[in-house]
Amino acid sequence: MKAEILATGDEIRSGALVDTNSAHISQRFEEAGISIVRHSCVGDDPDILVSILKEISSRTDVCIVTGGLGPTSDDITAQSAAKAAGVKLVLNDEALSSVEEFFKTRKRLFSESNKKQALLPESAECLNNPVGTAPGFFLKIGRCRFFFLPGVPYEMRKMLSDIVLPRIEDLQGNVRTFCPKRTISTFGLTEAAVNEKLIGFSDIFKELKLGLRAKFPVIQIKLYGNGEDESYLNELLEKASTWISQKIGKRIVSISGSSMESVVGDLLCRKKATLAVAESCTGGLISHLLTNVPGSSDYFLFSGVTYSNEAKIRVLGISSSTLNRYGAVHEETAKEMAKGAQRISGATYGLSTTGIAGPDGGAENKPVGTVCIGLATPDTVLANRFHFSFFNRLMNKKIFAMTALDLLRKELLRT
Amino acid sequence: MKAEILATGDEIRSGALVDTNSAHISQRFEEAGISIVRHSCVGDDPDILVSILKEISSRTDVCIVTGGLGPTSDDITAQSAAKAAGVKLVLNDEALSSVEEFFKTRKRLFSESNKKQALLPESAECLNNPVGTAPGFFLKIGRCRFFFLPGVPYEMRKMLSDIVLPRIEDLQGNVRTFCPKRTISTFGLTEAAVNEKLIGFSDIFKELKLGLRAKFPVIQIKLYGNGEDESYLNELLEKASTWISQKIGKRIVSISGSSMESVVGDLLCRKKATLAVAESCTGGLISHLLTNVPGSSDYFLFSGVTYSNEAKIRVLGISSSTLNRYGAVHEETAKEMAKGAQRISGATYGLSTTGIAGPDGGAENKPVGTVCIGLATPDTVLANRFHFSFFNRLMNKKIFAMTALDLLRKELLRT
Repeated sequence: MKAEILATGDEIRSGALVDTNSAHISQRFEEAGISIVRHSCVGDDPDILVSILKEISSRTDVCIVTGGLGPTSDDITAQSAAKAAGVKLVLNDEALSSVEEFFKTRKRLFSESNKKQALLPESAECLNNPVGTAPGFFLKIGRCRFFFLPGVPYEMRKMLSDIVLPRIEDLQGNVRTFCPKRTISTFGLTEAAVNEKLIGFSDIFKELKLGLRAKFPVIQIKLYGNGEDESYLNELLEKASTWISQKIGKRIVSISGSSMESVVGDLLCRKKATLAVAESCTGGLISHLLTNVPGSSDYFLFSGVTYSNEAKIRVLGISSSTLNRYGAVHEETAKEMAKGAQRISGATYGLSTTGIAGPDGGAENKPVGTVCIGLATPDTVLANRFHFSFFNRLMNKKIFAMTALDLLRKELLRT
Repeated sequence: MKAEILATGDEIRSGALVDTNSAHISQRFEEAGISIVRHSCVGDDPDILVSILKEISSRTDVCIVTGGLGPTSDDITAQSAAKAAGVKLVLNDEALSSVEEFFKTRKRLFSESNKKQALLPESAECLNNPVGTAPGFFLKIGRCRFFFLPGVPYEMRKMLSDIVLPRIEDLQGNVRTFCPKRTISTFGLTEAAVNEKLIGFSDIFKELKLGLRAKFPVIQIKLYGNGEDESYLNELLEKASTWISQKIGKRIVSISGSSMESVVGDLLCRKKATLAVAESCTGGLISHLLTNVPGSSDYFLFSGVTYSNEAKIRVLGISSSTLNRYGAVHEETAKEMAKGAQRISGATYGLSTTGIAGPDGGAENKPVGTVCIGLATPDTVLANRFHFSFFNRLMNKKIFAMTALDLLRKELLRT
């Protein structure tokens, strides 16, 4: 089966937006055992869109098209698809009721321009969008089965999983291939270093495919199996995970691809322990990450984002003599911050960050990228200093936050 | 002049890697006044590569090809280009000395496989790569001028700037076109609602193109100009911005595309005012957003992320009778939180959120998606209750945080 992807929209064509949809679709198709032959992208020009749809319809069996299904005048995918297929654009009853239903359940006003989203090519089949206003549609043009999906990644991914991939599997027929996969998250090694530690993998696990993916600052190790014997593949993935665990050691955050914040949350839950945080340079990011995990209110009690010295003194009870003697960015200050957060909230653990995220504020002995991390445990209080060189405020905040959570993770694993 | 981009390589085709090169090249071409008509991507398959090169050569004037110039066996771009052009692959002297020079100056070992990188199509012109081992090359196939560049973004970008774009400008000759653009950020209206308010735009501003982009929960309005008279286009964009401002009103966050958090930061700076935040359901996200802005330490003093009632009482000084009487999610509690943050930090403004981000924790009178936002000003304290229905924890956190910042923004604009 030959498959292609077509991304539409001036934003992607003009480079205002990087197309992440096509990579996601390719990955999911690869996992389902189907290689994508070609990706294309064109802008919101009806003539060009009609012509590329015809072109694809003459050479390919399946094509996923993203974008251009919205309510505005530059959303021209449905009309172009109708033209390419040589049919009329008509009001699709199912699409209309799906759009109306979406607005009704969300108590939002249904406007005339939303009605446009229910105009589909005459021979098209509506594909319901459970998480957005724009329904997708299925249409055969020439020999090719086209699935038209919204461009919003969240909506596209949901519809790809729920509707498109199961249908593709049906199309593939009796020979069912399985593509189980594993994601292993690591923190603290570069992509090149992870790669070096895994040399020899492909000699031992010839039937598996291995890939690395940097999701800054985490490096994910991806394992892909592909074959007809599902239980054999799962066994192989299990063995491969164990082999990788031995090679990477403590730098492995999760062998099931969980995020650092969920892993820390699970460890806290298991110990029936609670956590409070005092953040300076991370500015609330540690708290934001921790509270992204549903149920985090069970163990996350409090965070004080104390940007000013005044707040460090007033809220966390840092002594002004410590601040005067060592400055805000120092191990001693980090210790007092961690203890302060622990004390005022009554949490089992207190975690703190104080540092310089940049672009300004660096000094010769404390350059941008310096961070001191404090950790108050039930027994003691520790602090460590790190230096990173990313020269980017947001990257610094992310690596600071992740390093702090990783210290806590290791402490929770140790005790 | 018609231009296209072709990305090559199995990593991009299979989705293991997101193609950021094509967006970058498109942007640079747009800035130079040339619209890219189409992007394509194919894998490391010689037949497919030869056939798409021929296809492009028959319809386009200029094409930028990235990837496949390395020393390994799956780097097949040069041989495929030779085949598409119907010429032989030969050792290019300039390419050879450029590769040798690169290794010499970096004191790295020159291996036989690197020599492969100097094999170029007979009629090609070598394009030196100052920052990597793989030289690029220029080759005319049919009517189309192809620039073959490495896939490593850093190397590709350098060669695009230094070699390709100056040549493209020469090709354009005297007629220089300009493509100025504007981004206007809005918050509080859906994409469809923004679209409806802008009906009539294209009748008045025929020479501009308008597009909407949802960057949840912000809707951006994008304006694109294209023509030879730069100052006329800028004037037109100015007029169009004013027209849009009148149509959208207070829902416009920035007419220069700035983020909500920078706009709030600028307003606080201009008033020499400071801010403290008390976050419950947003879990640190407001603080994280505010502190992403460089220089935010000038006005952002403190945030208390008080997930537990205990922390609300101990740190923010919320009275337990308020909590008992109204519960944690209530306007009265939000008011006390905002006042508490303001009081303990000495900030000019105190902003607070308390609500239910989900997926659990909802009740009949306070369903998931409910948020109470408090705002303490120098004169008074206000609170509002909102309900959103996104059924997704992270989306709820984002819309809660943005709604809170927007309330503060409007207050700062009013006074």
